[in-house]
Amino acid sequence: MTTTVIVGGVAGGMSTATRLRRRDENMEIIVFEASPHVSYANCGLPYYVGSIIPERESLLLQTPESLSSRFNIDVHVNHRVTAIDPENQIVTVQTPTGQITQKYDFLVLSPGARPITPPIPGIERATMLRTVEDADAIVEKLTANTKTAAIIGGGFIGLELAENFRNRGMNVTVIERAPHILTPFDQEMAGIVTQRLRENGVTVLTNTEVTAIGDVTITLSTGEELSADLVIAAIGVAPDSSLAKAAGIELGDRGGIKVNDQLQTNISNIFALGDAAEKRDSIDGSDQLIPLAQTANRNGRLVADIITGRNVSRTSTQATAIVGVFGIAAATTGWNERRARSAGRNVRVVHVHPGDHAGYYPGATPIHIKLIIDADTDAILGAQAVGDAGVDKRIDVIATAMHAGLTATDLADLELAYAPQFGSAKDPINIAGMVADNRKNDERSIQWHEIEQIAGVQLIDVRTAAEFAAGSIPGAINIPVDELRANIAHIEDEVIVFCQVGLRGHIATSLLSGHGITVSNLDGGYVTWSHSRLV
Amino acid sequence: MTTTVIVGGVAGGMSTATRLRRRDENMEIIVFEASPHVSYANCGLPYYVGSIIPERESLLLQTPESLSSRFNIDVHVNHRVTAIDPENQIVTVQTPTGQITQKYDFLVLSPGARPITPPIPGIERATMLRTVEDADAIVEKLTANTKTAAIIGGGFIGLELAENFRNRGMNVTVIERAPHILTPFDQEMAGIVTQRLRENGVTVLTNTEVTAIGDVTITLSTGEELSADLVIAAIGVAPDSSLAKAAGIELGDRGGIKVNDQLQTNISNIFALGDAAEKRDSIDGSDQLIPLAQTANRNGRLVADIITGRNVSRTSTQATAIVGVFGIAAATTGWNERRARSAGRNVRVVHVHPGDHAGYYPGATPIHIKLIIDADTDAILGAQAVGDAGVDKRIDVIATAMHAGLTATDLADLELAYAPQFGSAKDPINIAGMVADNRKNDERSIQWHEIEQIAGVQLIDVRTAAEFAAGSIPGAINIPVDELRANIAHIEDEVIVFCQVGLRGHIATSLLSGHGITVSNLDGGYVTWSHSRLV
Repeated sequence: MTTTVIVGGVAGGMSTATRLRRRDENMEIIVFEASPHVSYANCGLPYYVGSIIPERESLLLQTPESLSSRFNIDVHVNHRVTAIDPENQIVTVQTPTGQITQKYDFLVLSPGARPITPPIPGIERATMLRTVEDADAIVEKLTANTKTAAIIGGGFIGLELAENFRNRGMNVTVIERAPHILTPFDQEMAGIVTQRLRENGVTVLTNTEVTAIGDVTITLSTGEELSADLVIAAIGVAPDSSLAKAAGIELGDRGGIKVNDQLQTNISNIFALGDAAEKRDSIDGSDQLIPLAQTANRNGRLVADIITGRNVSRTSTQATAIVGVFGIAAATTGWNERRARSAGRNVRVVHVHPGDHAGYYPGATPIHIKLIIDADTDAILGAQAVGDAGVDKRIDVIATAMHAGLTATDLADLELAYAPQFGSAKDPINIAGMVADNRKNDERSIQWHEIEQIAGVQLIDVRTAAEFAAGSIPGAINIPVDELRANIAHIEDEVIVFCQVGLRGHIATSLLSGHGITVSNLDGGYVTWSHSRLV
Repeated sequence: MTTTVIVGGVAGGMSTATRLRRRDENMEIIVFEASPHVSYANCGLPYYVGSIIPERESLLLQTPESLSSRFNIDVHVNHRVTAIDPENQIVTVQTPTGQITQKYDFLVLSPGARPITPPIPGIERATMLRTVEDADAIVEKLTANTKTAAIIGGGFIGLELAENFRNRGMNVTVIERAPHILTPFDQEMAGIVTQRLRENGVTVLTNTEVTAIGDVTITLSTGEELSADLVIAAIGVAPDSSLAKAAGIELGDRGGIKVNDQLQTNISNIFALGDAAEKRDSIDGSDQLIPLAQTANRNGRLVADIITGRNVSRTSTQATAIVGVFGIAAATTGWNERRARSAGRNVRVVHVHPGDHAGYYPGATPIHIKLIIDADTDAILGAQAVGDAGVDKRIDVIATAMHAGLTATDLADLELAYAPQFGSAKDPINIAGMVADNRKNDERSIQWHEIEQIAGVQLIDVRTAAEFAAGSIPGAINIPVDELRANIAHIEDEVIVFCQVGLRGHIATSLLSGHGITVSNLDGGYVTWSHSRLV
């Protein structure tokens, strides 16, 4: 009988185990999980801390007993695999009562990742959030006297916790070392979320480090001291690859377990997946750490298929991700602009701000979409979207388009479901594609971060006088789009135009070009420019 | 100076006009619209009737004045083009006060479609809903004494009106001639919507015709007479192609204006688009009538690009569409099963019923997804989805996958945005792809409409005893999945298994196959079977 041993019983490991059983009724399948729980809902932990998920049990999706009765899988919690002997195909396991060994024919490594501990004096008082036990520890600290929280790290988990603490009435400060929170996003997109956090009473500090953690305070790099009854460290995770490394399994440049497209390590009957393993980036094929549940689950199924003889391969990874906070959602797929530029790509960027559904139907809210495009090939390198509704849908559509190799201008042709409560006859995705098409062919444009570098060019706000009066970009003059034809004589030979979101700017650009003027449209208009100020 | 004349000033015509101006500041652009309004929100009319859209003005997106001042477009409402002289490039126009002629270099036909009037005695009392004037007529009839409404036709507009009338407290009956409402869908998917309508007090009659309309009643093909203070006819639209036909412009087999991929008619400087023109079907390339706003708008832009010299083409059309009624949404793209089977395709069908987001996060509701797959090629021929949340997102993703030529099993690899309030680590789309993959490779399955044809095969309900007791398929015996291994001796050599949604059935199928039993899983489980009963 063939024996497969799986190290780690959460997303990747448990997907492997159950799929193995469905593929092979006779295989011996043994899972060792170091923690007390298997198959728990990692991504739900911040919401359990905030009581949005009221029952701890609902986080525990499977138990060793349920996996035994349904799948005949041999699951051992509180069992930590401490050594691998690849030559003899044996693992050593620390059990609650001693040490055992186990033979294997196939070994699957899915131990996950560990939260990174920042080297700050007093860090031992900080709590991480990775496991059910971590969540229990936070809940235990949330007494009636816990009134202030400091969250080190403005990433997804940090922001989710910020919302949940704030909903408990606590004073919450998020401290981010980088120039803006949500580093998978670009500055002007993250800025929208920063604003929403501040509107909801969360203090957001960027370009700031925590230099010390005291008993009830923290000290910042600015010298300031803040009250912090509770301190959370959420600066990211590192792959848990030490077991593999000690056994001579090759690691990648980023410290994760290196695998090929069959998810094999350098030892052919040892596989690795999930947060411990490196992924192949969908844009440039490089090995990256992308600790996301979707890929872990998907690759678990693939490992089982491969072990049981199917000729299948992993696909590359786009790192599609989403976070929701105080009613706003921010989602991303592929590369951000920063990364595309640092990789030396010839980048075309498009920002649009259409309503999530038809404006004539009540309740439409803006959805801010950014496309990062390879200007040489029209390939979509990445996308970001932020808004109150429909964000997940638009990023999922773009992620699908990227997976399939559609170009940015192809987005104009997508036929998406339209009724006025769900979208628009020209969906935000179509609009992004049409703007990309305009830029590819005839419209000159500039980005918010380029506008200050262009000195001496006439800057024309083509919005109405009332919009101009309510606030504009310094140095701009106002000529509403509907008055441009009458004012052609007053317009210089080279100008930059902008409106609120880019549409009237596009109309103005077309119009002025038709009159022989060299004109650029400010991409995303005053809205994107304003978002870039929200750091 | 070049002159372009556009017949019809709503979606397609107005998209053409404004894009033409953006592409050419100097062209003369003249629009003739037969009705009093241009660029109105056709798809919003049912919601204006129901006061969800409270202001009539919000339906009127542009006026001749706004189009003149911003785009320098010459727009004439209440101007009906009555004849085209292709040889001399002249149109004749009936104005409110007389008749004029207008020369053109390019002519764009976008007159739209007309509601089909069913040949029923008394039909003149029925109201259609196509224009703002139609909506005005309905609103005028909605007095305090209007207590009963009969809606002939269970299509999108009929159902939207049914909801809006019901919300006003009226007694509403929907009468559908076909075996089920929502004919773009298959029976078991439409059944979910039928149920929701009935739960909300709407009477739904299928396989039923209206044979006569009286002053305050209607008579049905069953002989029954119903009170009907208001009668709506909403059985569909026909292309408004008579003007084109009279001018010698070629029509297609379905009565729409025939165009090539540059949207040209058989006369090269006359273009046609929108509901009056035929579209190229994305599955088999046939010409079809697909009267949807998205395609009209998209093709308007393309016509303008083609007239102004760009080398672009229309894409084929999937007929992606969505309707929302009483909180449930039903969306479709591509072909339904009926059409795929009648076209002689080797069809593989997948039904899944996952939650719209992670079950451990509050508020998840089932989303019912159906994939229609070409079993020979794994191509996605079509998809349908019905549910309370996330339906539009899933159909948009599948529509994008279809547009790009991804296969059904490719859906398993899509990397979609996951946080527990937005989706699942295995998104419903991934799950549909994984089931398709199982079916392609190893799992035998049968459809709800096949189960009654298979006599004498042991039918095993693998749900729990409590689920079985609450209702099952006639003739089934109950062996819960977790007890199958212990009961192998009692299972016949060939069986059909089913569970609630198909997952435990899949586990049972794998398990029993592993013990040498020939086993088929009922696709979509008891849920899909139950939906098929809701006609």
